[in-house]
Amino acid sequence: MGKTAINGLPKTYYYYPLLVAVVGINTGKKKNLIPVVWHTALSFIPPLYAVSISPKRFSFKLILEAQAFSINFLSYEYMDLVDKLGSVSGRDVDKFSEFNLKYFIGECCEAPVLEDAYLTLECKLVDHLKTGDHTLFIGEVMKTYIEEDAFLKDSTLNTDRLDALLYLGNHIYITTDKTRRKSKKS
Amino acid sequence: MGKTAINGLPKTYYYYPLLVAVVGINTGKKKNLIPVVWHTALSFIPPLYAVSISPKRFSFKLILEAQAFSINFLSYEYMDLVDKLGSVSGRDVDKFSEFNLKYFIGECCEAPVLEDAYLTLECKLVDHLKTGDHTLFIGEVMKTYIEEDAFLKDSTLNTDRLDALLYLGNHIYITTDKTRRKSKKS
Repeated sequence: MGKTAINGLPKTYYYYPLLVAVVGINTGKKKNLIPVVWHTALSFIPPLYAVSISPKRFSFKLILEAQAFSINFLSYEYMDLVDKLGSVSGRDVDKFSEFNLKYFIGECCEAPVLEDAYLTLECKLVDHLKTGDHTLFIGEVMKTYIEEDAFLKDSTLNTDRLDALLYLGNHIYITTDKTRRKSKKS
Repeated sequence: MGKTAINGLPKTYYYYPLLVAVVGINTGKKKNLIPVVWHTALSFIPPLYAVSISPKRFSFKLILEAQAFSINFLSYEYMDLVDKLGSVSGRDVDKFSEFNLKYFIGECCEAPVLEDAYLTLECKLVDHLKTGDHTLFIGEVMKTYIEEDAFLKDSTLNTDRLDALLYLGNHIYITTDKTRRKSKKS
């Protein structure tokens, strides 16, 4: 054992693995996709979901322009695609045509919904907050698109059928094992 | 395939599995621990990390009083402990003595650092934001405590040695498999 104490938090992957989400944006003129791992739910009622994006990213201005975004969850088999989506900029390429992605335009906010996503949350931007070198975009989830057989009756992911895409950092990905354990107490 | 579109986002576990973190608080008079899965990094410089907590929880007032918190990451073997930490309230029991937890007081902010955590981020509260039925507590990470052999040289989790604790919802937990895959492109 033996702990080491460090001042601050160096730029590391210590607090990973994290579930990958691909944020989709459509301003009408431009569409883009950006994978993120800094994202979280923030409220049940109303349903709020937030993503943290650096102002350096092309998607930053696009979200403000679109006032909406989608959050697409892809399974482990899409690892290479997702990594590539994070390695090129929407400034240089149209990622939808570059990677031959099938999508449709969402019903509420015209955000792109990826056909291959097992879950997509379509959000209306309700707030954004500068937090250090990133900005937190807070969306109200207006529409949820699911592949029904992706989930069990208790709404948990059907991990026998579908492998979650988790990011360890440094372009390394991992998924879950097949053993689901229910806590003894519950 | 075939997608189903739902209005809003029902209270489900669709967007899980998520890495579990145990938030620690110490007001001087009271100490408490609360497991959360709604948490995310928000900035590299300064290092900001946020946790989302309902005002119904005992920890809510305690964080405001302490103006600090710790975020403790425990491995999969602590599943039952973590689930129990979320099933009782600090109003009724002192969770540290109830569950015989070893900890020390953090160097910067007097937040509790769990001995069994492979990673602890000790945070000074810098902001909090009401977001629907939860509040987002934003901390600046002042100290990071690590078990050095928990991580590889590239700072990713040593998944051969240590199993991350992921929550699927409904008191069900899972961990990662042992296969780490590096993206082809990178």
